[in-house]
Amino acid sequence: MGLLIKGGTVVHHDRSETADVYCASGFIHSVGVNPDVPLGTETVDAHGCLVMPGGIDPHTHMQLPFMGTVVSDDFYTGTRAALAGGTTMIIDFVIPAPRQSLMEAFSTWQEWAEKAVADYAFHVAITWWDKSVHDDMGTLVSDEGVNSFKHFMAYKNSIMATDDILVGSFNRCRELGAIPTVHAENGELVFYLQQELLAKGITGPEAHPLSRPPLVEGEAANRAIHIAGALGSPIYIVHVSTQDAVDAIAYARAHGQEVFGEVLAGHLLIDDSVYQSKDWSFAAAHVMSPPFRSKEHQQVLWNALKSGTLQTTATDHCSFCADQKAMGRDDFTKIPNGTAGVEDRMAVIWDKGVNSGQLSVNDFVAVTSTHAAQIFNIYPRKGSVSVGADADIVVWDPEATKTISATTHHQNVDFNIYEGMQVRGLPIKTISQGELVWNNGELQAPEGRGRFVRRPAYPPVYETLTKRNVLTQPEAVRRG
Amino acid sequence: MGLLIKGGTVVHHDRSETADVYCASGFIHSVGVNPDVPLGTETVDAHGCLVMPGGIDPHTHMQLPFMGTVVSDDFYTGTRAALAGGTTMIIDFVIPAPRQSLMEAFSTWQEWAEKAVADYAFHVAITWWDKSVHDDMGTLVSDEGVNSFKHFMAYKNSIMATDDILVGSFNRCRELGAIPTVHAENGELVFYLQQELLAKGITGPEAHPLSRPPLVEGEAANRAIHIAGALGSPIYIVHVSTQDAVDAIAYARAHGQEVFGEVLAGHLLIDDSVYQSKDWSFAAAHVMSPPFRSKEHQQVLWNALKSGTLQTTATDHCSFCADQKAMGRDDFTKIPNGTAGVEDRMAVIWDKGVNSGQLSVNDFVAVTSTHAAQIFNIYPRKGSVSVGADADIVVWDPEATKTISATTHHQNVDFNIYEGMQVRGLPIKTISQGELVWNNGELQAPEGRGRFVRRPAYPPVYETLTKRNVLTQPEAVRRG
Amino acid sequence: MGLLIKGGTVVHHDRSETADVYCASGFIHSVGVNPDVPLGTETVDAHGCLVMPGGIDPHTHMQLPFMGTVVSDDFYTGTRAALAGGTTMIIDFVIPAPRQSLMEAFSTWQEWAEKAVADYAFHVAITWWDKSVHDDMGTLVSDEGVNSFKHFMAYKNSIMATDDILVGSFNRCRELGAIPTVHAENGELVFYLQQELLAKGITGPEAHPLSRPPLVEGEAANRAIHIAGALGSPIYIVHVSTQDAVDAIAYARAHGQEVFGEVLAGHLLIDDSVYQSKDWSFAAAHVMSPPFRSKEHQQVLWNALKSGTLQTTATDHCSFCADQKAMGRDDFTKIPNGTAGVEDRMAVIWDKGVNSGQLSVNDFVAVTSTHAAQIFNIYPRKGSVSVGADADIVVWDPEATKTISATTHHQNVDFNIYEGMQVRGLPIKTISQGELVWNNGELQAPEGRGRFVRRPAYPPVYETLTKRNVLTQPEAVRRG
Amino acid sequence: MGLLIKGGTVVHHDRSETADVYCASGFIHSVGVNPDVPLGTETVDAHGCLVMPGGIDPHTHMQLPFMGTVVSDDFYTGTRAALAGGTTMIIDFVIPAPRQSLMEAFSTWQEWAEKAVADYAFHVAITWWDKSVHDDMGTLVSDEGVNSFKHFMAYKNSIMATDDILVGSFNRCRELGAIPTVHAENGELVFYLQQELLAKGITGPEAHPLSRPPLVEGEAANRAIHIAGALGSPIYIVHVSTQDAVDAIAYARAHGQEVFGEVLAGHLLIDDSVYQSKDWSFAAAHVMSPPFRSKEHQQVLWNALKSGTLQTTATDHCSFCADQKAMGRDDFTKIPNGTAGVEDRMAVIWDKGVNSGQLSVNDFVAVTSTHAAQIFNIYPRKGSVSVGADADIVVWDPEATKTISATTHHQNVDFNIYEGMQVRGLPIKTISQGELVWNNGELQAPEGRGRFVRRPAYPPVYETLTKRNVLTQPEAVRRG
Repeated sequence: MGLLIKGGTVVHHDRSETADVYCASGFIHSVGVNPDVPLGTETVDAHGCLVMPGGIDPHTHMQLPFMGTVVSDDFYTGTRAALAGGTTMIIDFVIPAPRQSLMEAFSTWQEWAEKAVADYAFHVAITWWDKSVHDDMGTLVSDEGVNSFKHFMAYKNSIMATDDILVGSFNRCRELGAIPTVHAENGELVFYLQQELLAKGITGPEAHPLSRPPLVEGEAANRAIHIAGALGSPIYIVHVSTQDAVDAIAYARAHGQEVFGEVLAGHLLIDDSVYQSKDWSFAAAHVMSPPFRSKEHQQVLWNALKSGTLQTTATDHCSFCADQKAMGRDDFTKIPNGTAGVEDRMAVIWDKGVNSGQLSVNDFVAVTSTHAAQIFNIYPRKGSVSVGADADIVVWDPEATKTISATTHHQNVDFNIYEGMQVRGLPIKTISQGELVWNNGELQAPEGRGRFVRRPAYPPVYETLTKRNVLTQPEAVRRG
Repeated sequence: MGLLIKGGTVVHHDRSETADVYCASGFIHSVGVNPDVPLGTETVDAHGCLVMPGGIDPHTHMQLPFMGTVVSDDFYTGTRAALAGGTTMIIDFVIPAPRQSLMEAFSTWQEWAEKAVADYAFHVAITWWDKSVHDDMGTLVSDEGVNSFKHFMAYKNSIMATDDILVGSFNRCRELGAIPTVHAENGELVFYLQQELLAKGITGPEAHPLSRPPLVEGEAANRAIHIAGALGSPIYIVHVSTQDAVDAIAYARAHGQEVFGEVLAGHLLIDDSVYQSKDWSFAAAHVMSPPFRSKEHQQVLWNALKSGTLQTTATDHCSFCADQKAMGRDDFTKIPNGTAGVEDRMAVIWDKGVNSGQLSVNDFVAVTSTHAAQIFNIYPRKGSVSVGADADIVVWDPEATKTISATTHHQNVDFNIYEGMQVRGLPIKTISQGELVWNNGELQAPEGRGRFVRRPAYPPVYETLTKRNVLTQPEAVRRG
Repeated sequence: MGLLIKGGTVVHHDRSETADVYCASGFIHSVGVNPDVPLGTETVDAHGCLVMPGGIDPHTHMQLPFMGTVVSDDFYTGTRAALAGGTTMIIDFVIPAPRQSLMEAFSTWQEWAEKAVADYAFHVAITWWDKSVHDDMGTLVSDEGVNSFKHFMAYKNSIMATDDILVGSFNRCRELGAIPTVHAENGELVFYLQQELLAKGITGPEAHPLSRPPLVEGEAANRAIHIAGALGSPIYIVHVSTQDAVDAIAYARAHGQEVFGEVLAGHLLIDDSVYQSKDWSFAAAHVMSPPFRSKEHQQVLWNALKSGTLQTTATDHCSFCADQKAMGRDDFTKIPNGTAGVEDRMAVIWDKGVNSGQLSVNDFVAVTSTHAAQIFNIYPRKGSVSVGADADIVVWDPEATKTISATTHHQNVDFNIYEGMQVRGLPIKTISQGELVWNNGELQAPEGRGRFVRRPAYPPVYETLTKRNVLTQPEAVRRG
Repeated sequence: MGLLIKGGTVVHHDRSETADVYCASGFIHSVGVNPDVPLGTETVDAHGCLVMPGGIDPHTHMQLPFMGTVVSDDFYTGTRAALAGGTTMIIDFVIPAPRQSLMEAFSTWQEWAEKAVADYAFHVAITWWDKSVHDDMGTLVSDEGVNSFKHFMAYKNSIMATDDILVGSFNRCRELGAIPTVHAENGELVFYLQQELLAKGITGPEAHPLSRPPLVEGEAANRAIHIAGALGSPIYIVHVSTQDAVDAIAYARAHGQEVFGEVLAGHLLIDDSVYQSKDWSFAAAHVMSPPFRSKEHQQVLWNALKSGTLQTTATDHCSFCADQKAMGRDDFTKIPNGTAGVEDRMAVIWDKGVNSGQLSVNDFVAVTSTHAAQIFNIYPRKGSVSVGADADIVVWDPEATKTISATTHHQNVDFNIYEGMQVRGLPIKTISQGELVWNNGELQAPEGRGRFVRRPAYPPVYETLTKRNVLTQPEAVRRG
């Protein structure tokens, strides 16, 4: 059964065109004006709307066990919310405990994800190092469709990857054609600052940003970038939140290095005044790492998206309810770190980015979908409205409005960081695998319909790197 | 009569695919595997080859009267050479003399261009200012398909545009949705330094780079960018040759400004040691502005292309023969400024860029064709191998080799700045308007087959600018 | 009759020491503990206080005819206020009208300055260019003790120096060993933006900063720096108010160029919210160029002072009373540009700089006195508490406090931009030429006691420049 | 017995003056023209010469046991060579083995240093961490006159300080008012690259720079700076050799941080082509860390010295003879790291810095002596020709020349990295503690005459830091 999206403006990352899109068997079958379609083909009216590739959120944590509790959204509720917000694919994280087998953790997450209603893939975290980790990375790439590995430079005494692990893993990534990604915060500094603040009796959420000042992120981003550079590997920095990290990325790119950066919708919109709230719960609800920053950083992030220093937008969706946050009532370091947002990303970026003239509609497609597909090597299957691509599409009404609220959102969490924000420009229909799953407020997405998306190794970025790897060039000097 | 390009890898600016390309009536009719084509369709075998959008050289000067002589390549010989090199479109320059009517100059150039064998368009230079210039800019945009205007910040006492002209013209461009472009060199400094050098008795070509040091370019680029920024206009800097100018562009982009930069193949490959040659003719043959630079600048330019700070590559093709260069025998300021290269651009950038691993094949397409089409608003008609686009295509054999030489090139000039350079990777077939015009060394391109390409106003870059023009925002303060 | 300053801590730009300072005949006779002094020597008790070189304000305009009126402070009232604030020397400006003889203007200003009560010198502005200007510059340097020339890059249609004037004058400065200084704002842009704003009906003081956005300053600073760089001249940028200009200076310094920058106390303390005042007079009272900036710029300025990218602090003291400001009631471009502050500079910089820990006490001496003396080549005669120096000294009580107000200040103007600001740290005694002229609130400074200070050519900065002038190096290539 | 230095130009870091210098009892007694001196005072004729503070080399390793051998210069030969080169004080390093008591190591080095002939002080290295280290740091500062601690970020599996040690130690330094210093190279990367190169069979000295590319230094410098910044500590980066590290320092300084940088004379003059020598011994003789760099870096280092981004010059004098270097014949990682140079620093920096016009004579004094004294808090006792200072003085003949050679130098090593270099400008007399110890080629410096110089805590840089320590500011939010 096909589906015809008719009368809209198809917006690509690099151009726009007036065209109808015909989907069949889960794929895009044609993009053009007045295609021949079978009789009885369902038609979606897109007049006055934009037809864009479904959003890809390359950074979510569904069902994650973390800091003594479990994230409130599972793969079902989380991906439902995603579809309601125009996002048709997420890339989540397998996070093995230190000393846990990567393959075992990977199986666990695959099981959890079976109830997803949107397509998904996995980054796998490297939280420790030995020969089995080295070997399992190979298996994951060759057999399981994983082409990216995550490294936490923070969370000392837990999942923090020290420099020797980074060196080992980045190098292994290079051999395998996989992309290393990092959570860039200097874990030693964070740990020290946390202890200092607690010792001074500053235990509330207002201590959270003080324990993670911008330079903590700038340092780690710079370190990861240099390690990757020395090894001839590309690198991707997740949730860049500061000018410091943007500067580090821009510096490396200006020197010819392959560095990519992601920014969260939250960091683009929310500033650090939230931590000064008199309401502990409100402040605690915003505790995530890296923390929200002052307004100057926000403008730098928008500019970096626009200029191409940052490429992708994500959410780090990691939802905790008020009772979970309350675990850190007396000690801010025990407040579970994370905020939700997978549902709102597209709408808030449109509203603050496109409506304000900071991003063109093509930029919007690029930073919400296409770039992520390219970097993580599923383009043009994903991230593209083109013949042969998966029929993951969002129909966007630039004039539709709503007020965001936890009372109406589909996320399984009792707080929304954008509460009360009025947005103009909404996904009125979402098509996933060629099916109309979100239709003017109605979700029709049976549990388990989401599919694991295998991502091949060697994204295009490796084409150039393999030709100019530093360490393959030197030769011994001929002496005597 | 159609043409089928079969068995190649189609390389786009953002991905590659295995596909056949069927062209008919001058357009691309399909891109896909084994298309149905009419019986008797001519087939071009592209196995082992890459099929890419024909090159666009956004900076050439054919038949230009300049410095007391006329460029040796006219629109016929120049565009023939372009086709032989895989370039299927040029954007040349109409340069009115000060006080000359823009429309009159435009007519003259249109006449000259009638014999072109490849498609072409025109930037129009603003060399003076009054109401007629202001009005003619409007006519050119609305009636003549011109959407870019050029400003020479050098050439004092001739065509130099002073700041008041830049302010007037950039502002007019903004109103019209046209892009201002600049030749960025501080003309006052060049003039002063030239006089100083002559006064010291340094009259040979070695004085040329001394009269135009890198900061002369950096200053002007920065000035033009800031003027554009103050007025809310995008800007395009032609022939960026220095780290200084790259830094100025990167700085502005990092602050959210729409700035684009072009680099010449010559500046990427040739360094300033040429001016020290004992052979006056050799040194003089390299006199162009901005001059060739020291090697450090070259690496910065490659990195800037790769990182997206620069977007396009061009040649500033402006050919003079030895006897013309000899006009400046006793005074380097009288050596006609210019070098040829429209034929070699694609091959040398491939060889030094792609073979070395600095650029991917997709980057290559982007910087030799797609980006120029996008910025100058003819995408995806040009710069794209996609259904509906003009059938301007190059079939590239990455293993073919040749040695570049003035004795074998098609350019109408007796010197080649790449003389003796061996390159690997060549355009073995060029298709223009669906016709096979260059076929393994044979040119079949009757005079006059080239067409003027009209370029509409308001390239996508204006989409965002119009929303956030600084000067539309402020309001008077309400006072009692 | 000598004067002994006893028991204080002498603060130099590079160290502090406990020492008594004995002054006689206008000079410092000894710096050390318990010096032998003649019987009956007057003693100033400095216990608990800091003894520092008197402030030098290198940027004031006393008695200046400007924008159709005359500044309200003349050399008498202005220098009295200076002494009351711990500033013992000013460098004012001779500003010839275009086509006016430099020598004639110089005489006029010398006459006006005769009533000064503190020492003074003059920068001379170059507002036009011909052979007489070139020659008079020579005379001023050789015969009149002028070693710095000022260039206004703003004020189109009035005193603006275009690039050809800058090139001519900077080059002449280099020959003479004089330092060019610039007011860096792009006059063409300011003019254009002023017209645009007036055309939109925005005529109040809030339009003033809109007509002079930060990039207008950044552009001009960068241009002046590059012109100086090309000519091998040092350069000094007056009243740097933006990150843009700081970045331009830092960039040039990092590339080895001799660039100096001055910041006004006002720009360090006052932000641009003043222009939004509902009270026209209040807003208009702050109209000066460059305008006050947003807070982000202020932190950059403090950091630049601290790191050495900027060297001096000044006031651009240029006082207009409310009735004078009212000339621009209906047109902000007619509001006389200028604010007062020569009296408050030392105290406000101490309070916001030293008390906050941004500057050390030694930094304070450097940026309020020593650096100016060094750059303008009167060190160690001025700017230094050392044997043989002029006895211009301030005794600073770091615990004294006051509230700044126009009702109590000594400046001849009815407004104070620091009105109501409480400062801790004050000059309780000022010694000028060895005389106690300001003593706990009492001024004893008879009209005319100030002296013109001749400044020799070739400040130390020229020592290096003369060895590596670019244009003296190149040689003609030996050819055949 | 006094000494009168007569007729010279006294060059200070901030000015020059014509003055005689009279020394008595080891101190400078007067600086002025024609002082009264006791009959029979020895006179040094300084006509035509410059009289400057004796050099301070803040980075030497005498007698160091390292990499399985011991440095060939001990405190006697090393400080003799220093005096012969105009350097009157060194700051050497106490380097405890991991787990060795700091106090024990300090005693050992104090014993070794007893034979020194010039004054000396010690930095103490922090190579491990526990409570005893924390406590011993306190004792060293309070009782032993140590105010700086060194951290090696390289040398994995040996003396490398990991981030947790850096955090602990920098924080302790802040409490104590001591300055942390770092050898900035990422030890994990160096270790990995060394293994890779050996595995590829690249075992010669040419592998040394490949194992320590510039970004390895840039990364570590940036990391150390950020850690210091987060803790509110100043920091000093030893032997900065790359643009990467200079950029990191400049970035932090521009953001208001207290960061200091040292450059070695060797890095200013020698480039990395030495490692390509066919002569193994020659190449090995240049093995030091960080390695010599390509020429582009050298110009950046000179510019950074000039602009104030770097403050001091040193040598990292660490001499090994050919037979010691030969230990690494088959494995470059076993070549003892180090080069000599304490004797030549002043002359080569003068020749390449002052003679070329890159540094003024005042800059020369600043970077060879005064700045080191200021940062390490012995100014103006050292680093200054002023009344009351130690009489450590060099009489410099700017026209004297010599050719540097291992056959004539006083260093106890068989190689000189400046071999054959002709220099103009030499220390013809060196005065240490008021005694003429080096006189036109004659050394008169009995073993053991050197004294340990105690350095007090809290150099002036702490004056500002203590006022604005980040962690003392935050307060808990008052909640209901």
